[in-house]
Amino acid sequence: MPYFDAASSAPLHPVARQALLAALDEGWADPGRLYREGRRARLLLDAAREAAAEAVGCRPDELVFTPSGTRAVHTGVAGALAGRRRAGRRLVVSAVEHSSVLHAAAAHEADGGTVTEVPVDRAGRVAPEAYAAALRDDTALACLQSANHEVGTEQPVAEVAAACREAGVPLLVDAAQSLAWGPVAGDWSLVTASAHKWGGPAGVGLLAVRKGVRFAPQGPADERESGRAGGFENIPAIVAAAASLRAVRAEAAAEAGRLRELVERIRVRVPELVPDVEVAGDPVRRLPHLVTFSCLYVDGEALLHELDREGFSVSSGSSCTSSTLTPSHVLRAMGVLSEGNVRVSLPPGTAEADVDRFLQVLPGAVAGVRERLGAPAPAAAGGGEASLVVDAVGRRCPIPVIELAKVFGDVPLGGTVTVLADDEAARLDIPAWCQMRGQEYVGERPADRGTAYLVRRTS
Amino acid sequence: MPYFDAASSAPLHPVARQALLAALDEGWADPGRLYREGRRARLLLDAAREAAAEAVGCRPDELVFTPSGTRAVHTGVAGALAGRRRAGRRLVVSAVEHSSVLHAAAAHEADGGTVTEVPVDRAGRVAPEAYAAALRDDTALACLQSANHEVGTEQPVAEVAAACREAGVPLLVDAAQSLAWGPVAGDWSLVTASAHKWGGPAGVGLLAVRKGVRFAPQGPADERESGRAGGFENIPAIVAAAASLRAVRAEAAAEAGRLRELVERIRVRVPELVPDVEVAGDPVRRLPHLVTFSCLYVDGEALLHELDREGFSVSSGSSCTSSTLTPSHVLRAMGVLSEGNVRVSLPPGTAEADVDRFLQVLPGAVAGVRERLGAPAPAAAGGGEASLVVDAVGRRCPIPVIELAKVFGDVPLGGTVTVLADDEAARLDIPAWCQMRGQEYVGERPADRGTAYLVRRTS
Repeated sequence: MPYFDAASSAPLHPVARQALLAALDEGWADPGRLYREGRRARLLLDAAREAAAEAVGCRPDELVFTPSGTRAVHTGVAGALAGRRRAGRRLVVSAVEHSSVLHAAAAHEADGGTVTEVPVDRAGRVAPEAYAAALRDDTALACLQSANHEVGTEQPVAEVAAACREAGVPLLVDAAQSLAWGPVAGDWSLVTASAHKWGGPAGVGLLAVRKGVRFAPQGPADERESGRAGGFENIPAIVAAAASLRAVRAEAAAEAGRLRELVERIRVRVPELVPDVEVAGDPVRRLPHLVTFSCLYVDGEALLHELDREGFSVSSGSSCTSSTLTPSHVLRAMGVLSEGNVRVSLPPGTAEADVDRFLQVLPGAVAGVRERLGAPAPAAAGGGEASLVVDAVGRRCPIPVIELAKVFGDVPLGGTVTVLADDEAARLDIPAWCQMRGQEYVGERPADRGTAYLVRRTS
Repeated sequence: MPYFDAASSAPLHPVARQALLAALDEGWADPGRLYREGRRARLLLDAAREAAAEAVGCRPDELVFTPSGTRAVHTGVAGALAGRRRAGRRLVVSAVEHSSVLHAAAAHEADGGTVTEVPVDRAGRVAPEAYAAALRDDTALACLQSANHEVGTEQPVAEVAAACREAGVPLLVDAAQSLAWGPVAGDWSLVTASAHKWGGPAGVGLLAVRKGVRFAPQGPADERESGRAGGFENIPAIVAAAASLRAVRAEAAAEAGRLRELVERIRVRVPELVPDVEVAGDPVRRLPHLVTFSCLYVDGEALLHELDREGFSVSSGSSCTSSTLTPSHVLRAMGVLSEGNVRVSLPPGTAEADVDRFLQVLPGAVAGVRERLGAPAPAAAGGGEASLVVDAVGRRCPIPVIELAKVFGDVPLGGTVTVLADDEAARLDIPAWCQMRGQEYVGERPADRGTAYLVRRTS
């Protein structure tokens, strides 16, 4: 049963399992104690720290283990901001950071700080010049992911790190998606990561803070992990995390090459096999194992269920699959279609045959969902009214776009369709539909009920 | 090799190990995902929550899993204080809480809040009336441990909970040391605990918040664990924690009875076998498995090393074993001797023969340390000068007390000895020596070098 959601959580690596088992017997005691069980635990912890630091590319005393990647980000952002309080209270982030970074930014804003969001292009990438321009005298900290978790686009971390160094601003790099493949490039100040993304166990994050970076841990004091990650150390999991990081790194070059080709196959074949699909993210500067595409006129959750029934586990950034019923902030920032969104992220060892079977299954799954939703056939030349209004208020993604497409063939060239909708996804998906179809998106305005989106037929 | 420091961390329970292994294969995926691996993880998490809630005595939706007991306390204190901000900013704690509670209190004070510390008696117990008197209109939260982690004394939690309920103040009970033995008594509002104290794995704490208790999680938002414990859920460890809590509870009544007798044996025999020993804590209202005693004229760290060489792992609240070189705040609040302090906490299954061997080894270990430190023989009748000064500035515990005892026989009845010392432990241990010896402790005053402690010979 192929699991294609490694970007959420990777299955436990066999080396992690083995190391965890061994460390359960040797590493359960308090490493702060002087008796033999404590000394044994301390030795394991020290060895794990050395191994992890080597993989990160830092000194062991620059690295602490946190209870999760989220915790590493929250601790890192809060500590670096507080350490640079004198410089100012501005935090710079990219618009497509992981929610843990954006939530830390929101908390900073709620506490009176300022947040500047650097936009991305349609591939999800920040421009180094735009990032550099956002750095100001009062900037306390900058954050940039090494690669995006939803679309796989690699960010220009080394260039941005150089700009930050020039401006005297520390850069925190969230390397959660990339650390399995290699160390973070460039002159970073802080790095965060999460073990269960590389096949380590849950319960372990990494926070590396370069010597010389001002850092003031927030919250109640605790002497463990250099005062940067309170609570009893989870040594068996830490040992397993470090061992599996070494193991995946040893296989990284070969596995990256293999998965890159499988992902390339998906990137090329999906638009050939499925009509009205948009593949998102940078085609070249990307993670080797991850690809995202969106299907017009498709309900993301229904498609996920369909694929799950066929044995494929994937995730989605569509609004219908989120608890807030809004499309993924990443797709929104990129301005790409969000309906029928599917993220495929291949764990190491993924079989070629499973990818091929996915490509066999996908067209039928998409067609089935479209049929049940009453998605339109390709539009014929219209000769009807010059201006139509479609009322999709109260209807959820992808229905507003389906209703638009259904009537679009009825208006003549130069005619318009107004879609009334109150679903958040419409704001992203109606312009995206226009771009995919080569039609003109005129704009939106508030309506009595919901929002009115205006589209003009140009072809 | 007997490990007698269960209060720091208990060896992994066999049931925890088994459950962890099974859950590693079934519980590594994201429980927020809809595909089969996610659904399996969710089922495991839900089942673990139900089992843990039953053991705590709350509803499953009142309980969240945190990455550690420390984290449960920090989150619980901060969330409850923020939820009651309108009532006021006063936090009431006992003087002998775990450092995680006191550190949370210090953070609250640093943030502009107020902290009231309720003192304890010589047995380490708060008086319910004194606790009730500390509750005021502006009290936002009260904290009381179920039982003390250093001396084992049980606190009057049910009475204090009733007083809190009467005053309309929520009570947070840190049950880290007692949850293995049974649920918390009385009408509490919040309970915290830590799995590795009951033989569960590291990386799991519990936070229960009764419905109706105002609670506002602090820090960056995160949707996991009802928004109360951010970061990817550590499901294998959570499953193991819940399973082992059930298992230790099933054995609790029988094992408590057995360990209570072994501890009683230590309480009775140690003062018979070792001269100049003070056993701390309530002899009856106490944890079944824990006992603490202090030995005059003994360096705690040296004694721990001695016992470790003999194969016994114990801990100590003596100043020389702490990173800050101050005696444990618990012993200080109780006003008992801190030098040569040893805490014995027996894990479930401790063999009677091991306890007996400990009692055989201890007298020689103490005598060896005393001999190396040049501890005095019992004092003879003195006829020398009426007033002596001992200069122990720059010398660490237990040297100031040893120097006092060495010359004490030289002064006549009614005469005095002044000890000059700058070691923090002297402030606790010189009065404690006077109490044990039946001599009069007159008081302390600042001296040119360190502090002058005045003792009068009365017998």
